[in-house]
Amino acid sequence: MRQHKPFRSEMGFSTADRIVVRGHDLVEDIIGKVSLGDMAWLEIAGSLPTPQQSAVFNALMVTLVEHGMTPNAIAARLTYLGAPEALNAAVAAGLCGVGSTFAGTAENSARVMQEALKNVERPDLTRIAADIVRTFRASRTPIPGLGHPIHKPVDPRSPRLFEVAKQNGYYGNYCELIQLIAAEAERATGKALPVNATGAIGAIASELGLDWRICRGIAVMARAIGLVGHIAEELKEPLAREIWERVDDEVSEDLRKR
Amino acid sequence: MRQHKPFRSEMGFSTADRIVVRGHDLVEDIIGKVSLGDMAWLEIAGSLPTPQQSAVFNALMVTLVEHGMTPNAIAARLTYLGAPEALNAAVAAGLCGVGSTFAGTAENSARVMQEALKNVERPDLTRIAADIVRTFRASRTPIPGLGHPIHKPVDPRSPRLFEVAKQNGYYGNYCELIQLIAAEAERATGKALPVNATGAIGAIASELGLDWRICRGIAVMARAIGLVGHIAEELKEPLAREIWERVDDEVSEDLRKR
Amino acid sequence: MRQHKPFRSEMGFSTADRIVVRGHDLVEDIIGKVSLGDMAWLEIAGSLPTPQQSAVFNALMVTLVEHGMTPNAIAARLTYLGAPEALNAAVAAGLCGVGSTFAGTAENSARVMQEALKNVERPDLTRIAADIVRTFRASRTPIPGLGHPIHKPVDPRSPRLFEVAKQNGYYGNYCELIQLIAAEAERATGKALPVNATGAIGAIASELGLDWRICRGIAVMARAIGLVGHIAEELKEPLAREIWERVDDEVSEDLRKR
Amino acid sequence: MRQHKPFRSEMGFSTADRIVVRGHDLVEDIIGKVSLGDMAWLEIAGSLPTPQQSAVFNALMVTLVEHGMTPNAIAARLTYLGAPEALNAAVAAGLCGVGSTFAGTAENSARVMQEALKNVERPDLTRIAADIVRTFRASRTPIPGLGHPIHKPVDPRSPRLFEVAKQNGYYGNYCELIQLIAAEAERATGKALPVNATGAIGAIASELGLDWRICRGIAVMARAIGLVGHIAEELKEPLAREIWERVDDEVSEDLRKR
Repeated sequence: MRQHKPFRSEMGFSTADRIVVRGHDLVEDIIGKVSLGDMAWLEIAGSLPTPQQSAVFNALMVTLVEHGMTPNAIAARLTYLGAPEALNAAVAAGLCGVGSTFAGTAENSARVMQEALKNVERPDLTRIAADIVRTFRASRTPIPGLGHPIHKPVDPRSPRLFEVAKQNGYYGNYCELIQLIAAEAERATGKALPVNATGAIGAIASELGLDWRICRGIAVMARAIGLVGHIAEELKEPLAREIWERVDDEVSEDLRKR
Repeated sequence: MRQHKPFRSEMGFSTADRIVVRGHDLVEDIIGKVSLGDMAWLEIAGSLPTPQQSAVFNALMVTLVEHGMTPNAIAARLTYLGAPEALNAAVAAGLCGVGSTFAGTAENSARVMQEALKNVERPDLTRIAADIVRTFRASRTPIPGLGHPIHKPVDPRSPRLFEVAKQNGYYGNYCELIQLIAAEAERATGKALPVNATGAIGAIASELGLDWRICRGIAVMARAIGLVGHIAEELKEPLAREIWERVDDEVSEDLRKR
Repeated sequence: MRQHKPFRSEMGFSTADRIVVRGHDLVEDIIGKVSLGDMAWLEIAGSLPTPQQSAVFNALMVTLVEHGMTPNAIAARLTYLGAPEALNAAVAAGLCGVGSTFAGTAENSARVMQEALKNVERPDLTRIAADIVRTFRASRTPIPGLGHPIHKPVDPRSPRLFEVAKQNGYYGNYCELIQLIAAEAERATGKALPVNATGAIGAIASELGLDWRICRGIAVMARAIGLVGHIAEELKEPLAREIWERVDDEVSEDLRKR
Repeated sequence: MRQHKPFRSEMGFSTADRIVVRGHDLVEDIIGKVSLGDMAWLEIAGSLPTPQQSAVFNALMVTLVEHGMTPNAIAARLTYLGAPEALNAAVAAGLCGVGSTFAGTAENSARVMQEALKNVERPDLTRIAADIVRTFRASRTPIPGLGHPIHKPVDPRSPRLFEVAKQNGYYGNYCELIQLIAAEAERATGKALPVNATGAIGAIASELGLDWRICRGIAVMARAIGLVGHIAEELKEPLAREIWERVDDEVSEDLRKR
């Protein structure tokens, strides 16, 4: 028979009079003392942030909370219309759409850079940027983290995020590299391809030491908050039913006419 | 034909050089200035919090982020095992289980109290508490927000949360009422039925002016963060496969023997 | 320490050369011999259906597969737009909205009738129907399974479903009862309140011996199939992006004008 | 302003006395006449199946319904434990895990073959198989649709599925090709790499004319049914709580000892 491996986790446990989260006493050390953003850092990094980490991480997170009427916000509202007894499932439905089209590029951008700088002691960033641009262009794949359909010629979030990173000592090789990639891509294509918000977030998350595989989690935590916001508005000013009816009316009218 | 109603929302919009969220310029006024917890308040309340609202709301939120190896944390990890390409869907799976068994009582507790105090100018809280206890006992339904299977005789989170509420001027009729309900329930049943964390959260969320129907959203935002934390740990110390294999081995061995 | 209870399940297991599902050899006895609808019955009832059970159960199921542009179909399409790498998560998002507003009434209808007829040997159906109508009217709650916003004065699916049930020997007390409830409700209110499709399904599922708590599962299995159908159409004739853009355009234009 | 594109869909519509699904009258032509499996074909292919298509498609589908205690089945059960009011969300949670690890290989297998045979009139299957094996081996990526951790040396489902395909005239180039790929891979690696169930399903779905991008949908429809089956068993013989408690106990005991 297969030998059991032990179940091990550092996340937390409870006794009759105590709750411990990541090694901290919830009641004594967290409630009333730690903010939500710092708690999020504790969850993914395993220890409470320094003031600098907190400033940079909160900046990344608030950038991703709200983008107005996105497909996932509309999906969450429509789901709530069908199942108002389960707000949690409406948010879950919205999160199911936080994928490669709209939120995955931070993940991909971080991946490209983390793999390029892995185990490289004194990286030649200009050469690495040129290599990355060449490889992506050869496979006719868009370079993650560059360009934006609306925010042209500059995604205004990126310079602000880099500024916060700089002020807190987290502007290093990754931030340099994504800027060099953008410059090289613009040179090679002749198009405006500024670092977009997910490119900046991918770079800065890498500076913070976060594994690229958890970068989509930053968007997920932030969007979960934004999606609850949409449900809160839906409670006061419902929109989902009108969206549904317009779609259904137009489709049905066309089908009936045939 | 049906007349269209206009699509209206205050959540946000973008132009080429600007992103506006709930009336605030994201780049100028939010990134680097507003913390994640305050952003969450902005999303559900529509305006930035006062320092007191911020303190109380962040305290509620951090209480709900992490509870160790809950069913929804395990579900998220197992989902990630099957679909590592979609961290977002793993968190969504976990949120699907944030329902009536483990997280809904804040909602119900807030509902009972908000309905009891609605449009009552000078409420006789002792009488209202007695009425609530009598009604629930008559229908043999547990009173939401009281008692805990592990945390006995006191749920240590509740006094701490009430303390934070008091320090910030948010300990009012709802907090009084839930305490009176607990006292009356203990008197009537002879059992220890302290205000549990979700009872305290239901009361304090009501003090903050939050509609009971959005109270599950507090748990959802917080748990989304906790679930990303579990995936982050799963990346480093995988647990899901061992859980699956132990279950499958034991079930299969039994079936093969029959 | 707590004593372990054994993990037990009858669902299935595998060996190197064999897969057993609910006691049947998948390769020998199921593939090429059992249809999908009968397999669904095997899953929830634990044994293969008789021809009569198969006819009735398949009739219930196909009724619920497709309803055109419902909120959950639109939600699934919008989710697929955001995460085309995870068709499974798009269907999951759609299923999150198969709840109390649109699909839960079969569950509730079955529940009301199963609780009313539980352990009653020779039920007086007319009196029971009158009691049910009186109770719901007293609490100002709509009676589950009656009335439809579009299908008036008759939901055409219900007589057809009852006909299939009758032809196969599954028209008994539950089917009688829902008809009597509808008659009594129409008499008491003076309104047209025909048995709707979910009322008929609730009654017929009860005739088939299905627990009311699994009745939502019939809708879930059927809608999962319908939602995959919507994604299949979305692949050929995309609709989600246009829905999103119309909503976002109208909301953004209004916000920019303020 | 952007010009609206019309909302168009062939899925279905309703009038007061009629429901039309994919051009068929639901009451007249589907209920009591079409089985669930054939309805599933109608949803994804747009027309009712021939008897041969029905036989082959139902065979594919029933193969994927049930696999015992998989990670997604356990996740669905744990979710139901937390939110029994929303069976739909429990199934959704399970579907979130039907991804690349366990169910995506039919998709990938179909993709590889459809891209290889696209617009090729008289394909040299042996050469194409050799090319595919060489390419995958060069990039050190496993070839989708081959090999199985348990079912060795043969996955018993594959020969049975090919047999059903042959009997119904759907054993063509794709089925030949996957067999040639397996033979070539076994020759090149010296390992047993038989066509597994998802390889067979990918090939046969391609024979049926299904786009590789919808192939995961076959697994999703089938698994949704299987997951409802698991909830049905959970209602009678609960397993989720014991799974949770064993995990939590073992983790907590370890943490308390430190």
